[in-house]
Amino acid sequence: MSKNTIPLPLGFLASGIHAGLKSNGKLDMGFLYSSKPAVWAGVVTKNAVKSAPARRTETLLQGRKPLRTVVVNTKYANDLTGLQGYKDVLDTAVWAATLLKIPAHEVLVHSTGVIGVPIPRPKIKKGVQLGIKALSFSGGDDFSRAILTTDLVIKSSARSLTINGSRVWMMGFAKGSGMIHPNMATMLVYILTDAAISRPLLDKALREATDMSFNRITVDGDTSPSDSVVVLANGASGAKTITQPGADYRAFVEALKGVSLDLAQDVIRDGEGATKFVTVTVQGAKKDSEALLAAKAIAHSPLVKTAVFGADPNWGRILTAVGYSGAAVDEFKAKVSIGGYVLYDGQPRKGWSRAKLKKILQQKDVTILVDLKLGKGKTTVYTCDLTDGYIDINGRYTT
Amino acid sequence: MSKNTIPLPLGFLASGIHAGLKSNGKLDMGFLYSSKPAVWAGVVTKNAVKSAPARRTETLLQGRKPLRTVVVNTKYANDLTGLQGYKDVLDTAVWAATLLKIPAHEVLVHSTGVIGVPIPRPKIKKGVQLGIKALSFSGGDDFSRAILTTDLVIKSSARSLTINGSRVWMMGFAKGSGMIHPNMATMLVYILTDAAISRPLLDKALREATDMSFNRITVDGDTSPSDSVVVLANGASGAKTITQPGADYRAFVEALKGVSLDLAQDVIRDGEGATKFVTVTVQGAKKDSEALLAAKAIAHSPLVKTAVFGADPNWGRILTAVGYSGAAVDEFKAKVSIGGYVLYDGQPRKGWSRAKLKKILQQKDVTILVDLKLGKGKTTVYTCDLTDGYIDINGRYTT
Repeated sequence: MSKNTIPLPLGFLASGIHAGLKSNGKLDMGFLYSSKPAVWAGVVTKNAVKSAPARRTETLLQGRKPLRTVVVNTKYANDLTGLQGYKDVLDTAVWAATLLKIPAHEVLVHSTGVIGVPIPRPKIKKGVQLGIKALSFSGGDDFSRAILTTDLVIKSSARSLTINGSRVWMMGFAKGSGMIHPNMATMLVYILTDAAISRPLLDKALREATDMSFNRITVDGDTSPSDSVVVLANGASGAKTITQPGADYRAFVEALKGVSLDLAQDVIRDGEGATKFVTVTVQGAKKDSEALLAAKAIAHSPLVKTAVFGADPNWGRILTAVGYSGAAVDEFKAKVSIGGYVLYDGQPRKGWSRAKLKKILQQKDVTILVDLKLGKGKTTVYTCDLTDGYIDINGRYTT
Repeated sequence: MSKNTIPLPLGFLASGIHAGLKSNGKLDMGFLYSSKPAVWAGVVTKNAVKSAPARRTETLLQGRKPLRTVVVNTKYANDLTGLQGYKDVLDTAVWAATLLKIPAHEVLVHSTGVIGVPIPRPKIKKGVQLGIKALSFSGGDDFSRAILTTDLVIKSSARSLTINGSRVWMMGFAKGSGMIHPNMATMLVYILTDAAISRPLLDKALREATDMSFNRITVDGDTSPSDSVVVLANGASGAKTITQPGADYRAFVEALKGVSLDLAQDVIRDGEGATKFVTVTVQGAKKDSEALLAAKAIAHSPLVKTAVFGADPNWGRILTAVGYSGAAVDEFKAKVSIGGYVLYDGQPRKGWSRAKLKKILQQKDVTILVDLKLGKGKTTVYTCDLTDGYIDINGRYTT
């Protein structure tokens, strides 16, 4: 969702600036700031190779202390940069902390971009000064632009909810269009709320929301060493603090899920080279976990994704992907439909129309439904098509 | 390897004909025949969804009876065709068996092509008649053409060896350029030999050879429901029968490995849209199995494969893939080189030249070496780059 002006929840400031990292003059550093120390939770990439910022994020999460600010550069991932990379992350935090007069552990430093290249320290240091100076109530739009890399559109989503009579706001920003795959390791996501919530419940809420959103999307199956989802709750709304899993908590989780799913779907719509949004639902699996295996295999199959791109009515590739997914499947029971058009039900549908299927596949949103008819396991994942645009983008990313 | 005339081992005949299945007039049915019943072994796709021919192949393998002939059509996969597909396979075998005056269980029927479409019985029946009539000593070349689908070149390889003083020949044919992934389920491969060998040893030899060749290649990670590797040994050379695992058996296995690796590499060189051949070696893993996980993750990464295509010096994607492979990795120990040029050794190589790496990546053969420095596990896999050609082929395969 793209907007001209993005209102931030109470007590938050944001900015996005050009620090001279990107040669095309685009915004390349983003900043978030909370006037009150914010309770926070995060989910970090599961890739065994982690960037220096990702490892520091894990360490800060273990420290369980509040957070005040986030500094993001979107040109240098600071991954595979050796010990120097760790020093550079820490120094970046210190530069920001010194200017803001807060402890360095209240500064989260993130990055995304080229792997294996050390950050240019003088430019980053200068960028931190510029970015902190630029922090404002209306800086959300610049922030959402500054965190982009190969993304074509900004991604943000907001919800408001009432907690015990008080209005609270939640707003999320995401970056990501490649290296997108279930199990986190997906992108950079920042969700800000002026609700007040205990840290254990915020952590639980984030895991619930992530599981139904960011862990259900795939662009190319590659998982990045950098990416993270964090949520900051600063309580500036004055609403009652959520401390137990009752109705207020459920309302909070629903809002968080809503924002997360919006952002996750926006990432897919903006998938590198994507021309189509594909919803894959598998039901009737023996277990939910098998439904997920099957749905991911379909969503990840280059053959399914290229067929969707070319509107090639090659529906057989769908059950083929289920076949190697690890999920139990009986081809004499399974049913496959695309856009509601049944193509196979234990056997091929007699007289199915290639022209009709082609028309369905030519639409921008394509829905694939597989009913395995073996049990009650069910899930939905989201993906995009695989196109020559993807090849083009990734064949010359660093050059 | 492409040749004008392909000599067959003794006692074998082959043919390839146009049965009117493919609209472009290309050969679309292939036939093999052994004048003596041949001992045989096979490896069939691990996809849980199997084509009717693949399931019948499994059944025949369990029957442990000799084989006389192979009938292949390369337009209709006969997969996801319901019970009719099973009837069609059996009838095809009966049509050939009746003409050849042999039992139907001596006829292997294979197919590859479009999924979910029943075979055109009259055309196939007529094709069987034509193909059997055309069988000849010099039909290997036509056979190797007839089994192709999206392949650009024929794939064959031969070896001769001496068993107890007698000369024997071995010749292999392969088809396959998409849906190629480790763990079988890769393609159609036929290896013929006039050596004599016991069935259990032939089976063991095929598994050894497959593990080091066809299970070490990946084009797109999709595994097909149709594909099989079979080896037929008819003993027509008159050489002593190999009945125990001594020197003769080892010589046989080496020849079989040689033919298999030639064919596997030819499949990669002919990968759909491929412009480059990529050898990925991982050493220093904790175990061989972890080396294989890591090597497959690299070989399967769309980001690595597009970078190789575009000669984009983005070497960081290699260790990133290892990071999500499941293999143990320590980024402060690991070493990465491309084409012998070390880029990372616990930290990025200082002053590495983008221009030099780009030049290495622009070559047709690219070698990636990762040393994890954690143990003695080692393996090599083969893949190709991911290109807009792949998208183009698979976006309009059925149309």
